[in-house]
Amino acid sequence: MADKSEKTKARLPRGFADRSADDIRAVEKMMATIRGVYELYGFEPIEQPLIEYTDALGKFLPDQDRPNEGVFSFQDDDEQWLSLRYDLTAPTARFVAENYDKLPKPYRSYRSGWVFRNEKPGPGRFRQFMQFDADTVGTPGVAADAEMAMMMADVMEALGIKRGDYVIRVNNRKVLDGVLEAIGLGGDENAGRRLTVLRAIDKLDKLGVEGVQSLLGAGRKDESGDFTKGAGLDADQTAIVVSLFDREIANVIAQEGPPGDISKIKVDYGDQATFAPSKVKLLAMGVEASSVYREGTDELLAIENFVRSAGYSSDRIRIDPSVVRGLEYYTGPVFEAELLAEIPNEDGQIVRFGSVGGGGRYDGLVSRFRGEPVPATGFSIGVSRLMTALKNLGKLDTSDVLAPVVVLVMDKDTTSLGRYQKMVGELRAAGIRSEMYLGGAGMKAQLKYADRRGSPVAIIQGGDERAKGEVQIKDLIEGARMSAEIADNAEWRAARPAQVTVAESELVAEVKKILAAQAADRAKGASRLALQ
Amino acid sequence: MADKSEKTKARLPRGFADRSADDIRAVEKMMATIRGVYELYGFEPIEQPLIEYTDALGKFLPDQDRPNEGVFSFQDDDEQWLSLRYDLTAPTARFVAENYDKLPKPYRSYRSGWVFRNEKPGPGRFRQFMQFDADTVGTPGVAADAEMAMMMADVMEALGIKRGDYVIRVNNRKVLDGVLEAIGLGGDENAGRRLTVLRAIDKLDKLGVEGVQSLLGAGRKDESGDFTKGAGLDADQTAIVVSLFDREIANVIAQEGPPGDISKIKVDYGDQATFAPSKVKLLAMGVEASSVYREGTDELLAIENFVRSAGYSSDRIRIDPSVVRGLEYYTGPVFEAELLAEIPNEDGQIVRFGSVGGGGRYDGLVSRFRGEPVPATGFSIGVSRLMTALKNLGKLDTSDVLAPVVVLVMDKDTTSLGRYQKMVGELRAAGIRSEMYLGGAGMKAQLKYADRRGSPVAIIQGGDERAKGEVQIKDLIEGARMSAEIADNAEWRAARPAQVTVAESELVAEVKKILAAQAADRAKGASRLALQ
Repeated sequence: MADKSEKTKARLPRGFADRSADDIRAVEKMMATIRGVYELYGFEPIEQPLIEYTDALGKFLPDQDRPNEGVFSFQDDDEQWLSLRYDLTAPTARFVAENYDKLPKPYRSYRSGWVFRNEKPGPGRFRQFMQFDADTVGTPGVAADAEMAMMMADVMEALGIKRGDYVIRVNNRKVLDGVLEAIGLGGDENAGRRLTVLRAIDKLDKLGVEGVQSLLGAGRKDESGDFTKGAGLDADQTAIVVSLFDREIANVIAQEGPPGDISKIKVDYGDQATFAPSKVKLLAMGVEASSVYREGTDELLAIENFVRSAGYSSDRIRIDPSVVRGLEYYTGPVFEAELLAEIPNEDGQIVRFGSVGGGGRYDGLVSRFRGEPVPATGFSIGVSRLMTALKNLGKLDTSDVLAPVVVLVMDKDTTSLGRYQKMVGELRAAGIRSEMYLGGAGMKAQLKYADRRGSPVAIIQGGDERAKGEVQIKDLIEGARMSAEIADNAEWRAARPAQVTVAESELVAEVKKILAAQAADRAKGASRLALQ
Repeated sequence: MADKSEKTKARLPRGFADRSADDIRAVEKMMATIRGVYELYGFEPIEQPLIEYTDALGKFLPDQDRPNEGVFSFQDDDEQWLSLRYDLTAPTARFVAENYDKLPKPYRSYRSGWVFRNEKPGPGRFRQFMQFDADTVGTPGVAADAEMAMMMADVMEALGIKRGDYVIRVNNRKVLDGVLEAIGLGGDENAGRRLTVLRAIDKLDKLGVEGVQSLLGAGRKDESGDFTKGAGLDADQTAIVVSLFDREIANVIAQEGPPGDISKIKVDYGDQATFAPSKVKLLAMGVEASSVYREGTDELLAIENFVRSAGYSSDRIRIDPSVVRGLEYYTGPVFEAELLAEIPNEDGQIVRFGSVGGGGRYDGLVSRFRGEPVPATGFSIGVSRLMTALKNLGKLDTSDVLAPVVVLVMDKDTTSLGRYQKMVGELRAAGIRSEMYLGGAGMKAQLKYADRRGSPVAIIQGGDERAKGEVQIKDLIEGARMSAEIADNAEWRAARPAQVTVAESELVAEVKKILAAQAADRAKGASRLALQ
């Protein structure tokens, strides 16, 4: 079919990856658990296609101010623009708007699937990744937001993450909006600068307080020398914004009156941020006069009261003014699920793992289509990131999946092949994963193949065995153990025979016996490890 | 966020669809069964991304001769062309070629996922659909092809499709290639005409023998008046090709010598096609001299012997010369899984359901990348189509998924909400799917919501009940039954009370009791239906 000289190169575009058997099984296991919690909460599955009209998705991506940046788009044959979805929320909004009258309200739903970002890929940063979302549409009450936070806390524990190793952080966009209004950044004409402020704060984890301060002010040059323009706030405005999430600066403002040169501030920084540390000062600055600000703080208080009275303490769900989320479409409460454990990240570095998901209220997203207010709130889990974390925490063991028993092919005539195939069929009928060797290789290569697959057992029937109606069964696990050093005579005697010959009719029973013995060995090994 | 006047229209591009909860659950159930069979056969999961370099996918789609037709493509920022995958085979070939040395060989793998066709959508014909594939790479032996056919037969029965209600049809591209060579259509210069012949035969199901004859000859005008150019074979050439799969014409050729005017042929048509009906004639025409033809028939014979000796009879796997498959890349054995049952199709018409999957050997697809022969064979299941069939056969019942218990919100202060939330929490802790009503509506609207969800039970606690430490529990299923006509007094007395009031501490136990009674009623109903 192909000329050797014009051989096509087998390679993937940057930012895309193949998924291994182990990862697929781990994700499968994890998703089943998450799905179980979503279902228990009464959410229903629903899924949208991966392609939507570009205008239906809207442009709400962080760091993408130019049209068509950030998304993969192409024209349909009728010239209309289509895009690959960049998240699951925008298509959900389209679906709900299209079917609003048919749906029970409030409408609780969940979905998982691939999303795409046409961005510069990097380590652990892909252009295709999977999300697993839950959304409640049709109720403005913060009880729905509180439910999201509680459900995510329950998801974390269902996945085996210990209390104290995760936290769901909650904030409210309205708090920030109110502050920005008070410092003169209200109104449509400042929408762009407000977005810049938002995205600056969203980088707190990555850049630290000083980096955020630069982005709130004139701008910031990164290590590569690239300059990012800032929001252009002056020192006082910057200090007020930073005081929302930095206790150090909040204390200074509270004690010293209006801030002057913030570069001079060097006060002890407390152990953790708590809500509204600079309330006294904000009040003095006229922030309390902002009805948006008051709405925001009232809602946060209501969420806090609600989750506490439902029995969720602050080590599970915590109000945290530093959470803003980078997506433009959030209008009220925002959430972030954070792993506090120090484990290897995607690059193998031991770090405090950080965010594995987030979300918030997006009251404008369905309304775009309906021209009437349709309140909505949701949460999105980053599947690969969470899976990496769980694997590194030892919570996604897939070693219970056994490699297949291999029936070797000693004679290649059709009758013999049929006979080997029948053995395989009997093993499968007994629920034992197994296969007939399909290549053209000799016995040694076939055993090497079985070894490479990690097969527990190999079945051999050559001419001699066939004449006697027998089969040889090799215990490949025990065989490998015996060929490694065996410490003493007692151990040697305790070892199972690595090979037995039985009547053909005993095949299935004997293989079952060997697999059971191997399973018992594994369990012993596991309990030995647990005792150490 | 949006101005009412510039409201965006909520709609999907043609050929794309949202998936309902019921469909998602049905597919989930079906895929778990298929996965179980693939795993039992020793296949390993592996997945490729949805986007690949356009040249890596190649152009093998049926009915698409112009470049970039049939696939969704777009340029990357480095000007290279990317495409959404149109099947799972081409990306598998890319993956195997890229990782060949690391893989155990033969390499058995499976994968499921969305594929995309940039084609004209129609009823039951989508531009995004799901496939579930299995592939074996690295062995030229037809035992691998036979295994594919047997595995698919096992998949059908694992899904509950009765023997006789399905058949796996097997043919070999080499048989047709040999015939085309014998009638003068060999050589590179005739590649285009051979493809046209292939695609004509692939339409046999849709167009019947006469339609195929037109497409083999000058061409065909369809009902809409559109003309499709044919392969330009003359009457004798056409008759020879058609004789491969039409016994009527084969008989005529065998009895009367070389065909003349085939429009005069009116002989009884047998009950089913069998392999090589016109062997006598083909021999006379010099077809037997073609080594490709002989290879093809030998391989088919070997597959037939192999599956028979493994215990698969002709009502499960059958050699059928009409199977060709539309994709260009097949080089040897081809398969098709067909449902013989007459059930409603996607348009609701009762029909013999037809193909739910297929595949074949694609020895050139991996070689394109490696410049050395890498034999491969695979099978692809059309997930939505098979799911539709199984649902219509009553094999994918998802009615075991219960709607959530709804705890009504009678008082909206934070303390009350916390109390309702706690009830929900206790129910969930007992594994009972449940939710607190989240809207702002009154009791009547809340009960209507519960009804709309199909909820089994509603929980009510107003001020009076709270004062006494009690809850009201409504059995919504029994309530609906009682409000419908009840035939006589005996039935009335046998009915469970549709509402009980119990102590708060009894909530979970009482709900469990009601759900158990409802389950018993459903089981009784099901067995009554089964007896009818």
